[in-house]
This record gives sequence, structure tokens and C-alpha cells, in this order.
Amino acid sequence: MNAQVGSEARARRGGSLEARLLRRLLQSFGDPPIEFHLLWSDERVSTAATGHLERLRITDRRTLLGLLYDAQMRFGDAYVSGQIEVEGGDLVKLMVALFQIFAPEAPASTLSRIAAWLRRPRRNTLVGSRDNIHRHYDIGNDFYSLWLGDTMAYTCAYYPSAETTLDQAQTAKMDHVCRKLRLGAADSVVEAGCGWGSLALHMASRYGAKVRAFNISREQLEFARWRARELGLESRVEFIEDDYRNISGSYDAFVSVGMLEHVGREHYPQLGRIMRAVLPVNGRGLIHSIGRNQPAPPHPWIERRIFPGAYAPSPGEIMQIFEPSSLSVLDVENLRLHYARTLRHWLERYEANVAKVRSMFDEAFVRMWRYYLAGSIAAFDTGTLQLFQVLVTPYNNNDIPPTRDYMYPR
Amino acid sequence: MNAQVGSEARARRGGSLEARLLRRLLQSFGDPPIEFHLLWSDERVSTAATGHLERLRITDRRTLLGLLYDAQMRFGDAYVSGQIEVEGGDLVKLMVALFQIFAPEAPASTLSRIAAWLRRPRRNTLVGSRDNIHRHYDIGNDFYSLWLGDTMAYTCAYYPSAETTLDQAQTAKMDHVCRKLRLGAADSVVEAGCGWGSLALHMASRYGAKVRAFNISREQLEFARWRARELGLESRVEFIEDDYRNISGSYDAFVSVGMLEHVGREHYPQLGRIMRAVLPVNGRGLIHSIGRNQPAPPHPWIERRIFPGAYAPSPGEIMQIFEPSSLSVLDVENLRLHYARTLRHWLERYEANVAKVRSMFDEAFVRMWRYYLAGSIAAFDTGTLQLFQVLVTPYNNNDIPPTRDYMYPR
Repeated sequence: MNAQVGSEARARRGGSLEARLLRRLLQSFGDPPIEFHLLWSDERVSTAATGHLERLRITDRRTLLGLLYDAQMRFGDAYVSGQIEVEGGDLVKLMVALFQIFAPEAPASTLSRIAAWLRRPRRNTLVGSRDNIHRHYDIGNDFYSLWLGDTMAYTCAYYPSAETTLDQAQTAKMDHVCRKLRLGAADSVVEAGCGWGSLALHMASRYGAKVRAFNISREQLEFARWRARELGLESRVEFIEDDYRNISGSYDAFVSVGMLEHVGREHYPQLGRIMRAVLPVNGRGLIHSIGRNQPAPPHPWIERRIFPGAYAPSPGEIMQIFEPSSLSVLDVENLRLHYARTLRHWLERYEANVAKVRSMFDEAFVRMWRYYLAGSIAAFDTGTLQLFQVLVTPYNNNDIPPTRDYMYPR
Repeated sequence: MNAQVGSEARARRGGSLEARLLRRLLQSFGDPPIEFHLLWSDERVSTAATGHLERLRITDRRTLLGLLYDAQMRFGDAYVSGQIEVEGGDLVKLMVALFQIFAPEAPASTLSRIAAWLRRPRRNTLVGSRDNIHRHYDIGNDFYSLWLGDTMAYTCAYYPSAETTLDQAQTAKMDHVCRKLRLGAADSVVEAGCGWGSLALHMASRYGAKVRAFNISREQLEFARWRARELGLESRVEFIEDDYRNISGSYDAFVSVGMLEHVGREHYPQLGRIMRAVLPVNGRGLIHSIGRNQPAPPHPWIERRIFPGAYAPSPGEIMQIFEPSSLSVLDVENLRLHYARTLRHWLERYEANVAKVRSMFDEAFVRMWRYYLAGSIAAFDTGTLQLFQVLVTPYNNNDIPPTRDYMYPR
């Protein structure tokens, strides 16, 4: 037994230069429950004391050095290319362990600070936004329909109970939003960033509202218009290929579900001015967005590979939309764990249909999307990301229900 | 008829120098529905086009000139001293008209900007806070008991229906807070700024919680301790005469109802650090506070005469409590119109007992409190002030109910 302890201790302390560097990195990250298998030297490196370890292997020295320089960016790329692989384990659990490393209170290494400083987020100008949105949302409706479910809603769902299915939860989310907006048959609504159109169609078909829905993703709009025709809702829902910055007119409600992430902080006051300009005194506005507990740069890999130009704001940053335009915040709800669950449902469907994905795209794409979905689960599970729904109204609106009963019909 | 129009037109345009200055001021404020009666020249001045006018008289030229220099400060003082009087009208309606002048989007005059710049808010150091709190809350439990109702709760109540009485609404507010905190019999709670102790006693008697309640107002604490003895709750509720900055220990819940107004923006991150330090991972925190839709200096008269050192923060400013300490915002509710109603109930009781107030204090005091209560109604009615309840938890708490059902038991 003594011999074994001695051998373990040697393995923990000694080894190749890379193994020692990696060990120091792991120590600086608070000894996460992760073990690295360095294939080229066949070393296993971990600084975790005891308990279950998430195991992963790295194929080459160069990949490991990349991790030491910029772990967040290089880890994703190396997973996509297959130079990092999870060894008989669960990617989501590994990602949770990784996200706990980068928890809000963890110290940032000097190198990671430098790496973050060298990165430049992409701008959301009118042209830049079109390019940013095109890169993510126009990769194919067939692809998204493999795993988003019947509604094609690509935003956090709402699960009132443990038994709620993905499709039920997406519909429950739409109803939750419509109730918060107190949507009635006589109401007109403008939607900023309508995705594949499910909410716009739901507001028209279930609530009798008249909807103008804006989007700059051409593929999404084609699908949305086709659905409107199928449902005979063309006279009630108008899908407009244009930027939210060109919204004008007057509407009883302004709604935006999952677009704020692409707006960019510098445009928040402008978004608020538009909301204020189109809402009458008794108008209602709702913004549903991924957020964070405090301001922080976007995850570099997500910003670079998945959502160019994206940013998840803190509650205080979100208020910069409303405060300059005297919009009064009526209600904020945090649905963080609902998004973790939504993403789990998406990942399940993705894996169930991975053969079809493989027939459409190459293996790097397959791994990239798996990594993105698994990482997103981990981000919401660990509290790295939040999901805020914010309900607002012009400051001088006194037509406000006294309680939240209207959101929760009995 | 022509002669009458001509005479009216002359009266509108001409008159004394003061009348013409006042007319220009009213025009710059957007022609509010107010008529001034200048007693010394017997002129009636208004720039409102038509409709009902709130009428007030000013006794002397000097008071009017003071208004032209710093309307918000001087109006209150002149009302208190009787140099301004409402002529057969309703003070609350007049105050609403005045608050609409100073609505968020109204331009500030150069003079009012200078006056605002010359004012210095009082600091909330440990000693300064004691003095600030003493000046408002220690003027006599007998006085406050005349109009606060049975609970002696001096904060916004919660009116679930149109029939709810003041006492019922204060109890409903306490239950609303306790439910948001998911308070159970095994829970320990720390309260920052407990007033006359009603919430602390309610949490102990109705929810079985063990409460430590902090306050720096000696008069309030004497009353609270007396009530604890009367109710036999001394073993469950500890009232501590100390500043919230000296809170330590570990508690399942941190609650503060109506104290943030006295904390001062510069201390917000410190308040958040204290909340974070005393809450376990699954702890809950709730802050209930007067606020505004956007950052703005406090009403000068209120800050000087009623609440020295007070400040009503915007939602974004409130987030500066939580964001640096990685507290996750779960829920924000705006109860603005509930406070207007609470204040109406207080003012009704105040007027019903004004003879008793007069036997305790001088006429200036009687008028000062009437002006403060009426002005506060107007501030909440017009959207100048808001009332936010913010529920938070440490960022890594995953023990969060999926829906708000726990806040609304059926």
C-alpha cells in the first residue's frame, strides 16, 4: 500500500514538462474533477483529490499548449477537430465541470486575460447584423427541424411540471408570454426577431391578435410564410424581412423573444426608443433574452464559432434598454433552469437524429453542434448563463393589474 | 362677448412683472392645469388652455420669486408655512398636476439645474445614518400609530383586491414576501431595517421562522420589543440595535423591506457582499424598495425635510447591489400603484386624526406631513416613483421552483 501511495504521489508530482504545466493550470483552476489523458506520453494528469473524475484524452502536445494559452477558445476547437475526446464519459458532465472552473468568482489567469483582450467582438451594424444572423440561422431549416420540435421555437421553453414535453413547453412559453402581455383579440403586436414564426402565428391563431413580425434571416422567413399560408393566417400575420431598427407604427404590444442576444449593448438605448415610440400609454413590451448575473465578455468559442456578435447582458445592462426611454419595469422572471431543460431535450433529439445530421454536414459540424448544445446545458446548469423575461410599459401607464393573476389563469 | 374675450386676453398676456414671469415659467412647464392667485396684486395667472384648474394662492411676492428659482424645494416650504394654500381644491390633485410638470421627459430649466447642483445629499456613514434615521423615525411612536394602522408597517402594502383594507393589505404584503422567500419553520432569517417589527414578528408567528432583526431607530426597537413580549415571541425574534453593515452569521433568508432607500448608492455593493456572505448556496434574499424608472436625484424637498440621505434607485442601480456578488436575480415585481393606494389610506387616517396630530405638534408640522403624504401619492400615481421587490439567490443555487406557484397558493 505504501508503494502504491508513493507511485501515485510521483505520478502526481512528476512527469513530462506538459504534464507539470497542465497540473499547475488545474491547480490554479481549483483542482476540478477532471483527468487528462495525454496520448503521446500516455500520462494521466489530474489534481482532483478524490471522487468521480470526468476523463478526456488529448491527441497531441500542440493542442495541450493551445489550452494553456486560451482554454475556453482552444478547448472547443480541439473537441470539434477530434483532438480532444471524452473517454467513455458524458460530455455534459464534463462541460459542467469545465464551467465550474470559469465560475463568476474564479480568478482569471493572466494569459486568459490577454487572450480575452486580443479578441474583438463582431459589430452589429445593419449590414454586420445581416451577416451575423445569416451565419447561424440560415444553415438550413431541414437541419433545425431535426431537433427543435414541432414549434421550431429556438428559444427557452417553459416547463410548468416535470412531465411537460418539449413541444408542450414551447407552447406553454408562448402562452406565458401572451398572458404577460395581456394579449386580446383587438390587439396589434409587433415582434422583433420572429425566428421561424411560431410565436407570431400563435398570437394570431390563439389570441386573435394582428401581428407584424420582423426578421433578417431569409430562410426562417420563408418557413414562417409557408406556415402562415398553411394555417390560413396570412391576413393576420405579416412577416417582414427587415431589421428591428426599421420598426415603425403603433402597436398595443412589442415582443422580442431571443433577439436581444444579437442586438449588441451599444444599441440597447435605440431598441428602447423604438419600443417607446411604437407603444401607446397603455402598451406592453416584453423582452426575453439569455443573460448573465454580471457583465462579462461572451464565451469566446461561442461568439466566434456559433453566434457571431452575440452578447448575454446582465440585468443592469438590460435596464439600459428601458431607463433612457422612461419605460417602467413591471416584472422580471428568471427561467434559467428551464433553458437547461430545453437544451437537454434538444440535445436528445439531436443525438437521436445524428445520422441525418451526418448526411447533411461533415463530422466537424456534427461535433461542433454537440459541443455547443452540451456546453449550453452546462452554462445554464452552473448559473453561468441566465434567461430573463422582462415586462415593461410606458412610465405613465396606470392601467396595470394589481396582481399577477392575469399571468396565471386558474 | 367680444369685450370679455379682450379682457381675458389682456389678463393672460399683461399684468405685473411677477405675473409675466410666472406665466413664462408655466409655459416652459407645458401649461399645467394650475391657476395661481397672487394675493398682493389680486391677479389670477394660468396658461392652461381649457378644462378644470387646480387653484392655489400665494401670499407674497417673495414666495413667488423663490418658486421661480427652485420650484420643487420652495413650493414645499411655502406650503408648510402657509404662504401657499390650495383654494378650495384637492391637494393630491394639485400635486399630481405638479408632478406631471416634472415628468421624466420634461426639460429641466437652467435655474433648476443650478439649484439641484448646489444641493448636497447627506452621507450615510455609520454615524450619518443614525442621525438621518433618528430625524425621521424617532419623532414618536404615538404619532405614527395615528395613521399607519394596526401593523405599524411603514412600507408599501399589497392589495390583492379592490376591497382589501389597509391592515389586510399590510398582512398580505408580509405573506407575499414570506412566500417569495419560501419561508419554512426550520428557517432562520435576518432582517435589515425592521421598522416597528411587524414583518419579523409575522415571520416568527405565522411561519415558525427564527428571526434576527436589525434597526438603528431606538424608538422603533422599543415598540418592536414590547410587541415581541406581548406576543410571547421573544425566544424566536431577536431585535438588535445595530447597523445592517454589522450583520454576520448564516441565515436561510435575508430580507429588507423599505431600508434600501436609506442605504445610499455608494454602499450598494457592500450590501450585496453582506447578503452573499450570510446566505448559503440555497439561501434567498429579498429587497423591497422605492425606486424610479431611471436614475435621478431625489426630490429636493423630500430629501431635505423628510428623508435626509434618502435615494430612490432605478432598476439598473439596484442591480449594483447584486451583480458584484454574483447574486442571481430570480424575480422583480413592481408594486407602484399599491403604494399610491397605501398612501391614500395613510392620508385618510392622518386627516381623520389631524386634531390629535395638532395636539402633539405645531401647524407647520401638520402641514408638512400632509404635503409629504399627498406628494407621495402623486409621485406614485404619476410614475415618478416605483416600488420594486427583488428576489435573489446565490448564483449556484439550483434549488429553484420551476414556476411562481409557490408565491400564489391556491
